[in-house]
Amino acid sequence: MLENIGINAKKAARALANATSAQKDQALLLIADAIEQSASEITAANGKDMEAGRQKGMSSSLLDRLMLDESRIKAIAESVRDVVKLNDPVGRILSDELRPNGLRLVKVAVPIGVIAVIYEARPNVTADSAVLCLKSGNAVILRGGKEAINSNIAIACAMRSALEKSSLPADCIQLVTDTTHESSNELMHMNEYVDVLIPRGSKRLIDAVVQNSTVPVIQTGSGVCHIYVDKDADIDMAADIIFNAKTSRPSVCNAAECMLIHRDIAAKALPVIAAKLKEKNTQIRGDAEVMKIIGDMAVPADESDWGREYGDYIMAAKIVGSIDEAIEHVYRYSTGHSECIVTNNDDAAEKYMNSVDAAAVYHNASTRFTDGGEFGLGAEIGISTQKLHARGPLGLNELTSMKFKIYGSGQIR
Amino acid sequence: MLENIGINAKKAARALANATSAQKDQALLLIADAIEQSASEITAANGKDMEAGRQKGMSSSLLDRLMLDESRIKAIAESVRDVVKLNDPVGRILSDELRPNGLRLVKVAVPIGVIAVIYEARPNVTADSAVLCLKSGNAVILRGGKEAINSNIAIACAMRSALEKSSLPADCIQLVTDTTHESSNELMHMNEYVDVLIPRGSKRLIDAVVQNSTVPVIQTGSGVCHIYVDKDADIDMAADIIFNAKTSRPSVCNAAECMLIHRDIAAKALPVIAAKLKEKNTQIRGDAEVMKIIGDMAVPADESDWGREYGDYIMAAKIVGSIDEAIEHVYRYSTGHSECIVTNNDDAAEKYMNSVDAAAVYHNASTRFTDGGEFGLGAEIGISTQKLHARGPLGLNELTSMKFKIYGSGQIR
Repeated sequence: MLENIGINAKKAARALANATSAQKDQALLLIADAIEQSASEITAANGKDMEAGRQKGMSSSLLDRLMLDESRIKAIAESVRDVVKLNDPVGRILSDELRPNGLRLVKVAVPIGVIAVIYEARPNVTADSAVLCLKSGNAVILRGGKEAINSNIAIACAMRSALEKSSLPADCIQLVTDTTHESSNELMHMNEYVDVLIPRGSKRLIDAVVQNSTVPVIQTGSGVCHIYVDKDADIDMAADIIFNAKTSRPSVCNAAECMLIHRDIAAKALPVIAAKLKEKNTQIRGDAEVMKIIGDMAVPADESDWGREYGDYIMAAKIVGSIDEAIEHVYRYSTGHSECIVTNNDDAAEKYMNSVDAAAVYHNASTRFTDGGEFGLGAEIGISTQKLHARGPLGLNELTSMKFKIYGSGQIR
Repeated sequence: MLENIGINAKKAARALANATSAQKDQALLLIADAIEQSASEITAANGKDMEAGRQKGMSSSLLDRLMLDESRIKAIAESVRDVVKLNDPVGRILSDELRPNGLRLVKVAVPIGVIAVIYEARPNVTADSAVLCLKSGNAVILRGGKEAINSNIAIACAMRSALEKSSLPADCIQLVTDTTHESSNELMHMNEYVDVLIPRGSKRLIDAVVQNSTVPVIQTGSGVCHIYVDKDADIDMAADIIFNAKTSRPSVCNAAECMLIHRDIAAKALPVIAAKLKEKNTQIRGDAEVMKIIGDMAVPADESDWGREYGDYIMAAKIVGSIDEAIEHVYRYSTGHSECIVTNNDDAAEKYMNSVDAAAVYHNASTRFTDGGEFGLGAEIGISTQKLHARGPLGLNELTSMKFKIYGSGQIR
């Protein structure tokens, strides 16, 4: 029964909506200190989660995501201090217009209210989400996965004790300790108390939230990103971009999964690209034409390879006869996250960028740049792949709503 | 089975996303002409709906909403021509930034894609929604109520025949002719084909869509709007604003439903306000204190009067002891549409406008101004009372999404 959490969040959100930037920043600095000072409690709690994970046979990469040590905790505290340095997104004047009847319409950024975040096994999301919500004037309800529950409780406890020393209510940050399905399900239907729900994690989690939630959802998404190498591409640049987009961090959503190579350049380009990918032992899964050209450096792809997010050192490869064929493939298989064309032909680039429907479309640059930090937002709470509200990296501005303040002198209609 | 409609809409949306402003405007002018030229078919079809409505005992106000005659059809065509004159919202540069690594990030407005509109018995919504969606580059799926189905078919038919003469696909505008619950329910779950769903109509319809839809919804809302008369108010101005906000069109969502009067000014203000409201025989439902002052001009309110949308010449009235008490009442009972404070004290106004959580907050002006036309948007598809994406009148800009176009020269990360 999360109703009390909802009531408390609404109450905290009202106080927070009227808080000054200085009040919020003071609270954030106290939170950073508290996290550092609670390092031993947090690592102890995390130890329990790690032990439980090992006993359940959690994979080493998942265990690594779960693990917190002194240096990671220090990094979390530092990232809180980085958020303090960012501009307050609340109170921005989005437009200011004088109407012919003398009414002055000022559109101003305001907090959204109460944001619920449902996530999985990464305990750093606990601090990260709470801090971005607080800076943007929103109360947050955190619902992390059971794998990290002890770590999450320790982190939330540190943050709330810091808020108790601040001028803001502790209930600006609340953690749901019930990690059953029932608690996420209840959150998804708390329309009276929760203004927005943000799922962070696997495609399965996100799909479940989108399918079940009656609370509005900001969909952060999985990424099936393609690199299209046009016939007028610089081959070395294409190889560098593909290598970077695939191998610099294969597990993330802005990593590339598939290359589309124009037939006219394939015989020259593919061997160069394959040689580059071999440096990190990346498997290429090619269609029949690709196999004809670099059969010794690739394995055959099947239908299930198109539109697949490997999250690993594996990349699909396909020959296309034209830019239009590339656009069709992307239209069919892209998740609308990040897409790229490599070409020296500006007209082709413009056509591709206009036709491809994605949050970010790149000309001659790696898809790996789709990131709040790289976009200059300072921090992000996810990458939106939906069309409403915000698309691409969700920074502080994207965690605000707006309000019209209208100044009159007795106008009637 | 609406899947084919979904497939066709997606296909039309792709063509439309790349259409020029001139192409869209030409199509709109053809639509305006076609609606005028089909006036006799449309009135004949509307006659059937009117007859069916009369037989079912539809109220005269509903019958009036349903009715189309030559002059109303001409007005619909004229409003289509007005939309042609508005700026194309697609292609607007929302930001353009050069990052330190040389990447140029251009954030540009793009269409949302496919918009489904579910509405009730007003056949003019058919043309109105289709035209705003077309101008903003979106394919539309219209699902009107069964009461207006013959009128809707005639209007949609005229619009599609116009599109067939244009350079855009006829499927930019599709009408669902199945008016059973099943068809709306199917639309609400067509996440693969429908990007956004906009319900237009009664609170019951909107709530049903919000509760059931897995497709993202833009919630257009009912309005329980309050006028707070502060102790430092100009009493004549307060009376004029209340009279206008309540009686100029009681059935609309930006009409006021409740006045909150500061105790210090109540004895002087209430008789003036009540006398003004009497000009249009408006019933005042007052709390005990109001009854003590103007018992002869009011009837007692009960609990159900707070937060109630009358849509009629009825207004609730309550005495408050302070601005904070007014804010509390509004917090509890407002639907977040439009709220107003009447005062000559700028500090009080600012406090009120910052504390009250609504799409539009007025100082010394009627809530009736919350309207796309009055806000200078030219036309609107509804008033959003939700926090995500857009709040307040939804004009053409609010029917667009955005995309990052990122120009590089081989950057990798």
